[in-house]
Amino acid sequence: MNKSEIKNRKSTIVVKLGGTEGVDFSAICRDAAGLLAGGHKLVLVHGGSAEANALGEAVGCPPRFVTSPSGYTSRYTDRRTLEIFAMAVNGKVNTLLVEQLQTLGVNAFGLSGLDGGLMRAKRKAAIRIVENGKKKILRDDYTGKIESVDASLLQALLEAGCTPVIAPLALSEKGEALNVDADRAAAEVAAALQAGTLILLTAVPGLMRAFPDESTLIPEISAADLEAALGYAQGRMKKKVLGAQEALAGGVGRVVIADGRVEQPITGALAGRGTVIR
Amino acid sequence: MNKSEIKNRKSTIVVKLGGTEGVDFSAICRDAAGLLAGGHKLVLVHGGSAEANALGEAVGCPPRFVTSPSGYTSRYTDRRTLEIFAMAVNGKVNTLLVEQLQTLGVNAFGLSGLDGGLMRAKRKAAIRIVENGKKKILRDDYTGKIESVDASLLQALLEAGCTPVIAPLALSEKGEALNVDADRAAAEVAAALQAGTLILLTAVPGLMRAFPDESTLIPEISAADLEAALGYAQGRMKKKVLGAQEALAGGVGRVVIADGRVEQPITGALAGRGTVIR
Repeated sequence: MNKSEIKNRKSTIVVKLGGTEGVDFSAICRDAAGLLAGGHKLVLVHGGSAEANALGEAVGCPPRFVTSPSGYTSRYTDRRTLEIFAMAVNGKVNTLLVEQLQTLGVNAFGLSGLDGGLMRAKRKAAIRIVENGKKKILRDDYTGKIESVDASLLQALLEAGCTPVIAPLALSEKGEALNVDADRAAAEVAAALQAGTLILLTAVPGLMRAFPDESTLIPEISAADLEAALGYAQGRMKKKVLGAQEALAGGVGRVVIADGRVEQPITGALAGRGTVIR
Repeated sequence: MNKSEIKNRKSTIVVKLGGTEGVDFSAICRDAAGLLAGGHKLVLVHGGSAEANALGEAVGCPPRFVTSPSGYTSRYTDRRTLEIFAMAVNGKVNTLLVEQLQTLGVNAFGLSGLDGGLMRAKRKAAIRIVENGKKKILRDDYTGKIESVDASLLQALLEAGCTPVIAPLALSEKGEALNVDADRAAAEVAAALQAGTLILLTAVPGLMRAFPDESTLIPEISAADLEAALGYAQGRMKKKVLGAQEALAGGVGRVVIADGRVEQPITGALAGRGTVIR
């Protein structure tokens, strides 16, 4: 990398859009279009749990969540659930986000981690869970933890004037499709691109010392203090804190956990609204 | 284009995979992997009507087909149907094809016509139909006819060692997602790439003079005689004949309409099995 490449990369912003209710995708798209017109480079990573749940219910395959012995909850993804996840997340959320951006004049490019081997993950072949007080092992789960992101592919799209929009699926060592956590996918993408800023948009104003009391919002926190934050982060926020740790360890300039329900969520986060972590 | 570029393009093969029952996607993928290993360049375009119909039924929005005054039948695509189409075709068929190719060691790259503005189409804003003997106009339909394909985008993917796998969605002038006919999308892609061969795989051995009598298979036909073929082509075969005309008029070397139900369907078509049109 020469100096201009480094500068270029540092100006890249990776934004994770939650699938949570209340997060306004159209406001995010309008904000993104304005920032792109102003010369920023953006990469969007999205979730889609709510859409996957709704589709699963509609086709008679409601979501099942399992709990690990250490208390983490995750979606149980057998093969049928994986296909429903692909339809909802890659088929609907990704396609409609790309459409929305294209109507705003943004040359969006939707892809998942499978395409061109963008994101490779290690499949969690056996998952320990606790069900009705008993420990069990699940062996047919298609979830994974990302091990590598091909930054050159994203860089080529950015250089071609495209805005990548990434769905949280990755390739296993065997080429299987795996469901991956979108917050941590965004963190790995940001690290691979050596992005200046990773913004994790959610349906709360940021990290709170005593959730859900918004007056306890933490405006700034150092990477060193993040470990303690894992203690008071609730539910999904735990994965955002893990993602923030991974991104900073990977060389990302700063991470902002910010409110996705406001009019200009990305601009707001860039101005420091939310919880800034560095 | 210099001479080596022209030679390069002429060696490109565009293959349309039907969504029709009986067409064996896994045999097509294995055949594709073998040909790629032998140095061929492939671009795949797929349909997904059967998957879209099945998903529509499952979520309580069964497909509706409408008939034009001149007797052509097409899928009525209101906004909800478009979303179902995107889920089934872009979310499921495309993702699982990419996965299947990746497990075979092919660096497949799935995209739809929305991504990076790959395929732009003119929306059919008002569709004339005949229903219960009465003429009607539908104004909420999201289908279109392709007007341009960005060959440079596909060329860049091919040069990066990827095999593009294209879902039949395109962008309207306003950036809306449109459902497009996959056979004609494949023809436009082949023309844009100045491909040497366009192969349209289907669930019959080729074009027959008296469908379904397979002994009337036409092994070879000139582009000039295709107009007459529109007379005896039945149902979906009409769109393949239209696609073949468009591809040849656009500079594609030859078009082969071939059987997708056999063990090596692409290799067979390249060897001239099916109906060869030039």
